[in-house]
Amino acid sequence: VVEAGGDDARAVGAAVYPFTGAAYTVGITGAPGAGKSTLTGRLLVSVRETGDAVGVLAVDPSSPFTGGAILGDRIRMQDHATDPGVFIRSMATRGHLGGLSLAVPDAARVLDAAGLPWIVIETVGVGQVEVEIVAAADTTVVVVNPGWGDAVQAAKAGLMEIADVFVLNKADRAGVDDTERDLLTVQGLAGDRGWVPPVVRTVATEGRGTAALWDAVRAHRVHLETTGALARRRADRLRDEVRAIARARAAAEADGRCTGVAFEALVARVLARETDPYAAAAQVVGPVGDS
Amino acid sequence: VVEAGGDDARAVGAAVYPFTGAAYTVGITGAPGAGKSTLTGRLLVSVRETGDAVGVLAVDPSSPFTGGAILGDRIRMQDHATDPGVFIRSMATRGHLGGLSLAVPDAARVLDAAGLPWIVIETVGVGQVEVEIVAAADTTVVVVNPGWGDAVQAAKAGLMEIADVFVLNKADRAGVDDTERDLLTVQGLAGDRGWVPPVVRTVATEGRGTAALWDAVRAHRVHLETTGALARRRADRLRDEVRAIARARAAAEADGRCTGVAFEALVARVLARETDPYAAAAQVVGPVGDS
Repeated sequence: VVEAGGDDARAVGAAVYPFTGAAYTVGITGAPGAGKSTLTGRLLVSVRETGDAVGVLAVDPSSPFTGGAILGDRIRMQDHATDPGVFIRSMATRGHLGGLSLAVPDAARVLDAAGLPWIVIETVGVGQVEVEIVAAADTTVVVVNPGWGDAVQAAKAGLMEIADVFVLNKADRAGVDDTERDLLTVQGLAGDRGWVPPVVRTVATEGRGTAALWDAVRAHRVHLETTGALARRRADRLRDEVRAIARARAAAEADGRCTGVAFEALVARVLARETDPYAAAAQVVGPVGDS
Repeated sequence: VVEAGGDDARAVGAAVYPFTGAAYTVGITGAPGAGKSTLTGRLLVSVRETGDAVGVLAVDPSSPFTGGAILGDRIRMQDHATDPGVFIRSMATRGHLGGLSLAVPDAARVLDAAGLPWIVIETVGVGQVEVEIVAAADTTVVVVNPGWGDAVQAAKAGLMEIADVFVLNKADRAGVDDTERDLLTVQGLAGDRGWVPPVVRTVATEGRGTAALWDAVRAHRVHLETTGALARRRADRLRDEVRAIARARAAAEADGRCTGVAFEALVARVLARETDPYAAAAQVVGPVGDS
């Protein structure tokens, strides 16, 4: 329902909201092919060893060239399909008011209200929307691979500023020392005051280093909780979300006004060069809220 | 000014608007690496041979992983740098109200008002926004390469439905017959009634086929003009644009309301779970236009 968007989604969002706030969210991002899915699968093992249940939202921005959300679901499900303590959902929706950046927090709150103490949000870090989604987690993990320029690429994508933990995955490959040095150079860009994002080496395909990664996530959580930064971070996130919903609502309302005889007459005047598109749009938006 | 957005951009847009409508726009899109830039460079030669001046907007969606707008400008400029009949501009702005999808038509109208009879809009066809931008041209050229699945990928990206002319670039490579057959299979998806999008083979690096491509673009223009489809297409486009501007204006207005003591008090109530984000946003948007 939340993915489909619309009034029902908002009703669900409002209904579950009072029961939220207990879950801790972990965002995992990186370039395509960095090994995020494998890493997430291994992290689930570490979480489950502590006895905690965990939810995963695998956010696929449904790039027109991929459309791999359903396939991804199946691959990831295999290892955990019979475990009632793991809930995995791929999201690629566009139906939701405001798109994925509003649908993901809503979906995460449904898992939160359902009592899952950990929620992992995994998405590819290649676009503004995806970076925003994952930056909205309590702890954000940025995955890079050894190789010339990989850390530089991540920096270009704006991933350095949002990293709380760096993962150097595929650490058995050549160039790992160089890439780690690159990461240590840009460490200063990242993290809250008082927290230097650690660099954790992993070989996710073999499960190497993933327990240490989970330890690093938990250490960051302790840092946020003891310094009060968690409450500030969540307040900032909620403020941004209310603003985004307000923007989307206002836009949808304006869109609803762009129809009917009066609007068509206005478009005809623009076509005839009697007025311009901006003046016409101002005429449409002007009366919003008068009713 | 138009790229920077804001009130000045809207003033320029309104000022030039009465002087627009004479230019014919050609969109060129395709996957990264399909050879769009080289093809555009060669097309300019064909246009210039007719004596007509031409403007090019090379739209780079400023993916965080590329940011190649300035570099692209320089490479493309080399061949035509001293020709006063060619104007080339790379656009990668995000400052404009409503983003690139509103900035590009505005920029095209500046070139239109300046008297350029042809405007080529080139962009990579990998995202919703880019596909919309190029689909808004009078004639849309979709570039694919020989190779397994390339036509299928283009179809997935929604490029088949918007194609008026298909270009099979790098036609000297293996698999060109198979890919042409794939394109002919999906031809039915594309074009206006009464127009079957032709498939033009090119080797842009050597200039082969690019004159035939320009002929195909002109044939499509004649089709649109003689059937009255051009006027309908432009009316549809303008209607969409007025709607998009209205949406963006309304969203910006709502955003402006998300500040100050009352808004902070509202966010505090959401944090305390006394209300939910949707109800809070409704409270913000509700009064729009009362003043």
